[in-house]
Amino acid sequence: MPAVLDISVATTVPGPVSKQAASQLDTIFDSRAVHFVVDYDKIDVDGNRYLDVYSQIASIPIGYNNPALIKAAQSPELISALVNRPAIGNFPSSQWHDILKNGLLAAAPPGLDKIFTAQSGSEANELAFKAAFMLYRRKQRGEGVDWSAEEVSSCLNNSKPGSPDLAILSFANSFHGRGFGSLSTTRSKAVHKLDIPAFNWPQAPFPALKYPLEKFQSENIAEEQKCLAKVEELITSWHCPVAGLIVEPIQSEGGDNHASSTFFQGLRDITAKHGVVMIVDEVQTGFGATGKFWGHQHWSLASPPDMVTFSKKAQTAGYFFGNPMLIPDKAYRQFNTWIGDPARVIMSKAVVQEILAKDLAGQCARVGDILYKELEKLSTKHPKHVQNLRGKGKGTYIAFDTEDAGGVVKLMKQQGVNIGTCGVQTVRLRPMLIFTEAHIAPLIKAFDQALSTIA
Amino acid sequence: MPAVLDISVATTVPGPVSKQAASQLDTIFDSRAVHFVVDYDKIDVDGNRYLDVYSQIASIPIGYNNPALIKAAQSPELISALVNRPAIGNFPSSQWHDILKNGLLAAAPPGLDKIFTAQSGSEANELAFKAAFMLYRRKQRGEGVDWSAEEVSSCLNNSKPGSPDLAILSFANSFHGRGFGSLSTTRSKAVHKLDIPAFNWPQAPFPALKYPLEKFQSENIAEEQKCLAKVEELITSWHCPVAGLIVEPIQSEGGDNHASSTFFQGLRDITAKHGVVMIVDEVQTGFGATGKFWGHQHWSLASPPDMVTFSKKAQTAGYFFGNPMLIPDKAYRQFNTWIGDPARVIMSKAVVQEILAKDLAGQCARVGDILYKELEKLSTKHPKHVQNLRGKGKGTYIAFDTEDAGGVVKLMKQQGVNIGTCGVQTVRLRPMLIFTEAHIAPLIKAFDQALSTIA
Repeated sequence: MPAVLDISVATTVPGPVSKQAASQLDTIFDSRAVHFVVDYDKIDVDGNRYLDVYSQIASIPIGYNNPALIKAAQSPELISALVNRPAIGNFPSSQWHDILKNGLLAAAPPGLDKIFTAQSGSEANELAFKAAFMLYRRKQRGEGVDWSAEEVSSCLNNSKPGSPDLAILSFANSFHGRGFGSLSTTRSKAVHKLDIPAFNWPQAPFPALKYPLEKFQSENIAEEQKCLAKVEELITSWHCPVAGLIVEPIQSEGGDNHASSTFFQGLRDITAKHGVVMIVDEVQTGFGATGKFWGHQHWSLASPPDMVTFSKKAQTAGYFFGNPMLIPDKAYRQFNTWIGDPARVIMSKAVVQEILAKDLAGQCARVGDILYKELEKLSTKHPKHVQNLRGKGKGTYIAFDTEDAGGVVKLMKQQGVNIGTCGVQTVRLRPMLIFTEAHIAPLIKAFDQALSTIA
Repeated sequence: MPAVLDISVATTVPGPVSKQAASQLDTIFDSRAVHFVVDYDKIDVDGNRYLDVYSQIASIPIGYNNPALIKAAQSPELISALVNRPAIGNFPSSQWHDILKNGLLAAAPPGLDKIFTAQSGSEANELAFKAAFMLYRRKQRGEGVDWSAEEVSSCLNNSKPGSPDLAILSFANSFHGRGFGSLSTTRSKAVHKLDIPAFNWPQAPFPALKYPLEKFQSENIAEEQKCLAKVEELITSWHCPVAGLIVEPIQSEGGDNHASSTFFQGLRDITAKHGVVMIVDEVQTGFGATGKFWGHQHWSLASPPDMVTFSKKAQTAGYFFGNPMLIPDKAYRQFNTWIGDPARVIMSKAVVQEILAKDLAGQCARVGDILYKELEKLSTKHPKHVQNLRGKGKGTYIAFDTEDAGGVVKLMKQQGVNIGTCGVQTVRLRPMLIFTEAHIAPLIKAFDQALSTIA
């Protein structure tokens, strides 16, 4: 399924072989969400070839079967990491320092020079929450003050003061993962949350901007100010202390909702003022997807976020931080058996090096600008079906609303374009970083065809 | 660091090169828990060779640099899985069915023929909790009854009825992971739990057996009955419904605490009686470590556990289940971007095949029996330092209490044996499945030396 131009679809999608394979898989592994079954060395199992702008839910960074990644996968250090999986916190390999230094840390957000590794975006966010909670209590307790006997015994019973009431603030429509802590900050859809116990944590409204932005400047400024005021009100009035705030640079699963740099600067100011740790969730926006390596680099913040979490295109996960106080007061507090997977971190190193060496973030910015203009034309041609086009200046991180997003996606697949939705009525573009000018025409052609069919 | 017999330690442990490497690493990655730094193709970075009976916190299944694992790591299907990491729920590879069928499912616990994959023991347990909660509400709602509008809207606000008060019961001294849900069931140590918000879930006492078992039969029976009564009392009297119970076959991080088959049969009866999902956490006990493939196979239960979670020696993670009602009513409820890592699941297939082909669980049972007898002799020689020896008939899953467990471990390292502690005063043995009769003598010799030094 490489993102190349010889698109060819000869069956309905999914094809008969896909259907049969999914149905066989379903006897042992829930397959109701399967779109189609893939032979990753070639094509889908029915012989169809796609232009993929969904990219495994935005998680393929630099294309299928990328030679740089194949080389990394075959390297002796990777084979050793696969075969001799260490408990990294106890027995790191002699290469671990250099793997981090020349890989993930070579792309660390400015000001954040330390890292904790994880295995998924959910886990990365939860680890960041734990660091925020431990820092909050450390400050409250006072530096050098040891844990009290009551704290030590009560926490084993999940009771106060050892297990305190502390909160993370998140935003309506956000998605931060599916663990019990991360899911408590996720506010996207009932299908993600229903029936699962959750912490009583606050959610603030995220700005609902009106498009085109040029037309609604004053309304949008007012909307963002209203949201910022609500954030501050929640922080100062919640039933328990708010230790951290988590926000996506662009709300992705929740519908590709954007806000201005002014809004995020406001969040940085409010969190700094109230001693709330600011966590930027770059699981989907990170690794070049917005035309800069990190989405928050668009904002020109007065001071860096306290933590930046990542996963997806990174092919691994974790969080960056700068403040050494975010390292807990004792060893083994932020800890687990594996602390990530060095095999995946080595793959990540190859991804980082490829993005930096070829300036793929810069390419994404350049190609995204052209793509955006083509989509603007399309919205003029199909105004009923391409609404609230957004993502200008954010690389290829572009989306629009349409009445029947699921229907459009289905028609696009039949045209040989694998594409996804988000929110309730949004078609989102998540091409890989190897998406170039050459891919724009076939993508726009497929859109035009699909939207004409629907009309 | 292969588990071979040419043990050699030429420096203090950790040696100077280890210390320097750890200190360099510490500038970017918290290294306070580092025991020593390893060149996994050979030895530790100071040139020392160990007999490893700690096995990366019990997570190395069949030895370092195992040829079967190297072969799997070099296979085209593994390279493809590393390079083209899929969103397995949406676009599984054409090999995924066979990888599961011939790998993890070839070792599935009897009666549990379905699987959901994950990346860590913590995640596996949380996914099992979510399945338990969704099943509980599904039954409560009634089959075919759709979600109410109030449920759908309230869950986005983390409020009832959409985010219900439901609990998982666990046991004092248990360890089930470090996510916010799994940590709410972990009851081992303050260093794992302090300062982290937790759910108000019940903990039952776990039997505190007295050793030697032959001497305290009636006391131990009474102790287990008391604990079972408390479990039933908590289930019927907790402030909210208890949807699931999670238990380790042997409480591992909590101090290698055992209970009899009768106790576990009692748990199965109580959970079945009250419609509570029984989750057996085999993260540490699974994959042959107790002399059977799964620790719970020692119990002869009337009906299988509802879910069995695994990780560590599996080199991946997930849960097995049999009841199709544990698959949620709708797609995308039990879901995430990656749903495990196929690269690690392929490694797991090689592990499973090696264990089954060479009957390494059987070997572990045989070698464990001999090892236990040798340790009994040691306890007679050093009665002050080898107390409450336990794990008879459970393969090499053997432990004993000693006043200064940390001191013993330090002396053992200096003798060239890498070994770990658990609980507060327990030395635990966690050799790999390739530990044979030949390794017993050097291990016992090192123990004898260390315990003589301490005395």
